Amino acid sequence: MATKATGEMSRRADAVRNVESIIGAAITCLARDPRATMADIAKEAGLGRVTLYGHFASRPALVDAVVARVLERGERVLAEIDVDGDPRATLARLIRSSWRLVDQSRAVVVAAQDELSAERIRQLHEGPAARVQLLIEHGRERGDFRTDMPVSWLVAMLHQILHGAGAEVSAGRLDPAQAPELVTKTVFALLDPR
Amino acid sequence: MATKATGEMSRRADAVRNVESIIGAAITCLARDPRATMADIAKEAGLGRVTLYGHFASRPALVDAVVARVLERGERVLAEIDVDGDPRATLARLIRSSWRLVDQSRAVVVAAQDELSAERIRQLHEGPAARVQLLIEHGRERGDFRTDMPVSWLVAMLHQILHGAGAEVSAGRLDPAQAPELVTKTVFALLDPR
Repeated sequence: MATKATGEMSRRADAVRNVESIIGAAITCLARDPRATMADIAKEAGLGRVTLYGHFASRPALVDAVVARVLERGERVLAEIDVDGDPRATLARLIRSSWRLVDQSRAVVVAAQDELSAERIRQLHEGPAARVQLLIEHGRERGDFRTDMPVSWLVAMLHQILHGAGAEVSAGRLDPAQAPELVTKTVFALLDPR
Repeated sequence: MATKATGEMSRRADAVRNVESIIGAAITCLARDPRATMADIAKEAGLGRVTLYGHFASRPALVDAVVARVLERGERVLAEIDVDGDPRATLARLIRSSWRLVDQSRAVVVAAQDELSAERIRQLHEGPAARVQLLIEHGRERGDFRTDMPVSWLVAMLHQILHGAGAEVSAGRLDPAQAPELVTKTVFALLDPR
């Protein structure tokens, strides 16, 4: 029985390692080419396609896991932002960090838009969206941000502005060096109370 | 020869009719369900799948043609807006008409986001984007709109705001009756000169 249990644990450890290798390989491959195939990703991970499909039944399922992972890492970065004090200064820091995450993950964003529904992408952003919502609500109470639009709308607009900037950079219409200031100015134009 | 030419003309007329039937059927099917299959669309058009695939090699190719058609129709609506006179009033009319088009085509928008790249969607919007750009430039000359952001950015943001509203309505987070006013207010918050 001890041997059987040890065997089971070792299989589980293998499975966890394989999933980690696959997600890591997918992030690498998708960053090189958002249209990277399952075969490319298996090769990068040093695993067979059967093993890959054993963990992720389809490319959308794998892209979903990659987006979840990238957002988790982003959450850890955003969690370090000091949220006490002035909501405007906090929001400015949050926008700059978020832009950096979007910019670094532009290829993953393209893959996500190709494979996942808009609603699924929104669901995966629930963590960062909740953070932004709290911050906007806090700023509203102090009179820092406008109160004549639903907070859910303002959160959705921040998402649209950040990802619109990503698309403009990807299309070569926006200099990535100009993006953080432009995004910040756009968000504040929207949030400033009239 | 005359008979051959007549036969050729008749085949071409059939092809044009079939393409029209397919696009019409696709718009109907996608409005019911953005995930409607090629088989669903062939059935709705009263054509065989071989004929359907003869005209559109893949679902993305058909969705591309549907989006182009929907935007063409939209262009005709937007072309009727009187653009002389006050750019702010013109823009307000343009936003309301554009919102109506986005709202009516929400299911097609979902299908487009699933099947087409963000850059292809942008290319298909070149007509309406050019219209908005001219209007913003005209308003800037008169001091009606801010001049401290690239005009291409402002055009991209209008697109993001309109489609963000579509997504919020689809997700049940925004009452469609409130959308036109909210979208208009958001666009003007961004465009107002400081």
